[in-house]
Amino acid sequence: MSDSAFLTQAAALTHWQAHRRLTRRVIAAFPDDQLFGYSVGGMRSFGEMCNEFLSMTVPMTEGTVTGSWASFAEGKAKTKSEVLAAWDADTAKLDALWPKIEASRFPETITAFGQYTGKLNDLFMYVIDNEIHHRAQGYVYLRALGITPPAFEDRS
Amino acid sequence: MSDSAFLTQAAALTHWQAHRRLTRRVIAAFPDDQLFGYSVGGMRSFGEMCNEFLSMTVPMTEGTVTGSWASFAEGKAKTKSEVLAAWDADTAKLDALWPKIEASRFPETITAFGQYTGKLNDLFMYVIDNEIHHRAQGYVYLRALGITPPAFEDRS
Repeated sequence: MSDSAFLTQAAALTHWQAHRRLTRRVIAAFPDDQLFGYSVGGMRSFGEMCNEFLSMTVPMTEGTVTGSWASFAEGKAKTKSEVLAAWDADTAKLDALWPKIEASRFPETITAFGQYTGKLNDLFMYVIDNEIHHRAQGYVYLRALGITPPAFEDRS
Repeated sequence: MSDSAFLTQAAALTHWQAHRRLTRRVIAAFPDDQLFGYSVGGMRSFGEMCNEFLSMTVPMTEGTVTGSWASFAEGKAKTKSEVLAAWDADTAKLDALWPKIEASRFPETITAFGQYTGKLNDLFMYVIDNEIHHRAQGYVYLRALGITPPAFEDRS
């Protein structure tokens, strides 16, 4: 089997930002008081999950580029408007940081945040997949609230 | 930004099969009568979602390799044991088919199943992401049933 690219560095950023646009629409679909005020089955609110996303996306990328790892603290947004503002700021930061990663590093094993050891591409995939995973739980919360969530296939 | 690989063809298969192992554990965590008998918020049962996964994974890969596209029919499993048997059969089929794809095709635009047009790597990412997305809804169902789901980070 080939060692050629399935996904290039450029395509990976495009893929990630497309998912982040969908996540933004899911955040926006929550009523203001339910983003941090609603959950199913004793789980976290979707707002708390978004703070987790914010604590991973830019800190993971910045740590990779600079070698300086933020402590893995959850984001601090407390309202829907704070989450959305942080989200939009991170979109620009991610676009600026991602091209600074040397592609030769992706298959190398590193330790992120002083504690997560793995291949760099696997660590990034974990961050993206974690967002897909918890966002889908936000979909269930919206359905249970009687709200139709954004279409999964729309990444515009 | 580099056109070098973020994820190679080999790494993509490893990533996908790791997710499929986790999905298998989520299926196994459902009580027999709840896999097709339970849902939240008017959504599909997790068993129906698994039939969707089965209708995508091998048919997408086989269509890519052979150019012959199965009609996009949902899987036909009706019980947990049928889902698990189909799942395990597909694990071997996917391992056999994936290396037959010429890596140069991944950035090319194709039409899958006669109706889904996109870059081949994006179409495969959609199949993988769709599994992550709906599996996460299975997590909520398990939580709502009082069952602790498998750890998201465990892909062993």
